[in-house]
Amino acid sequence: MKIVGIDSSGLVASVAVVEDDTVIAEYSVNFKKTHSQTLLPMLDQVSEMIDLDRSTIDAIAVAAGPGSFTGLRIGSATAKGLAEALNVPIVPIPTVDGLAYNMYGTASLVCPLMDARREQTYTGIYEFNRVKDVYIMKSLMEQCAVPVDEVIEVLNGMDRDVVFLGDGVPVFYDKLEAGLKVSHSYAPAFMNRQRAASIATLAFSYIAEGKTQTAAEHAPVYLRLSQAEREQLEKENS
Amino acid sequence: MKIVGIDSSGLVASVAVVEDDTVIAEYSVNFKKTHSQTLLPMLDQVSEMIDLDRSTIDAIAVAAGPGSFTGLRIGSATAKGLAEALNVPIVPIPTVDGLAYNMYGTASLVCPLMDARREQTYTGIYEFNRVKDVYIMKSLMEQCAVPVDEVIEVLNGMDRDVVFLGDGVPVFYDKLEAGLKVSHSYAPAFMNRQRAASIATLAFSYIAEGKTQTAAEHAPVYLRLSQAEREQLEKENS
Repeated sequence: MKIVGIDSSGLVASVAVVEDDTVIAEYSVNFKKTHSQTLLPMLDQVSEMIDLDRSTIDAIAVAAGPGSFTGLRIGSATAKGLAEALNVPIVPIPTVDGLAYNMYGTASLVCPLMDARREQTYTGIYEFNRVKDVYIMKSLMEQCAVPVDEVIEVLNGMDRDVVFLGDGVPVFYDKLEAGLKVSHSYAPAFMNRQRAASIATLAFSYIAEGKTQTAAEHAPVYLRLSQAEREQLEKENS
Repeated sequence: MKIVGIDSSGLVASVAVVEDDTVIAEYSVNFKKTHSQTLLPMLDQVSEMIDLDRSTIDAIAVAAGPGSFTGLRIGSATAKGLAEALNVPIVPIPTVDGLAYNMYGTASLVCPLMDARREQTYTGIYEFNRVKDVYIMKSLMEQCAVPVDEVIEVLNGMDRDVVFLGDGVPVFYDKLEAGLKVSHSYAPAFMNRQRAASIATLAFSYIAEGKTQTAAEHAPVYLRLSQAEREQLEKENS
């Protein structure tokens, strides 16, 4: 089975093609260009590099939110376009789950932190449990938008070693170091940001569980109101 | 500090630019094209995508062997060319160490297996030890070319859980399952092959330890004689 993965939920734009146990191609960029300038050109370059016959694609996996509103819209629009054109399902992967999956197999708790602005973080808490010769990722706190103090408090209560990753780490580092009472570490550069290959790999188990959508059904999960919606609501309530 | 990573030691061609704690770009392809067709075009595309000012590059990290002889030569030649032109050092990363580093932070032993043909594997055994908030990778068996039975025997003697990765896994899977007496698992798709971002990340600690070379000094480490050298030697000894 061949899956195209897309993640443009944060500053990283990432595309990948994963076939069963092998990443055929992965291309990730963490740069100031907007995803509308990078994502499709990257997918085109990858397709050309691996002579991708698009009729062999079985599904499109996409980081479906939360994250940057514009980034999510570009990622989901791209996924919807591809899925519609190729007549294949979309596999929506919760962004924070996808990020946590980078740490596959760790014995520590995994706590991704994305900078959600307005003093909040998109986060969650995960662990990997060994079942025979694979690890199954389990969410102990589902992805949510909360102040970082809140997740620090929950982690302190869990009293286990934890590894942090994501673009929220540099943003919240001082608060983490001041507030954490549990031993902890930070993921190294090559593991600490969104990767489309993680999204696509995780999609295989989602497909096995029937967690797919049609192109028409798919919409990103923002977890919060957009700035425009927030301002509209404030205006209505004022 | 900004490091360009290159890995073309196996079937994967991979390039990356890592700046301190962040992967700016990574592009990996595992496809039947030869590295001479892929590596430089990929580096060009990445450079253009991130508007790379080559004068800001501090070092070139390269998977320096063992591996495919042709692949190593292309990777090392590319690294030498860049390092010479930019007047920066080369950081030679042992290929098997670079592959093992993909599993950063695992509590299991790490055993990369590369298909070395002629019934052998390029392999090694590694563990990650926590020192404060980082993990240091330690080699328990340095990279070498041996029959897979030999590494199975060593692992059985160590009596610890082990995780396997690399293109040798599908090749030696039946032998592993038949011979291993210790619990073990296999790395998932997004972790199980060479990554230039791992090479480049690992290079930061090599540089701190002064383990660099000039372009002129650098040469790949083959660990074995090439087919041509072997045949020449056989001819001389016959």
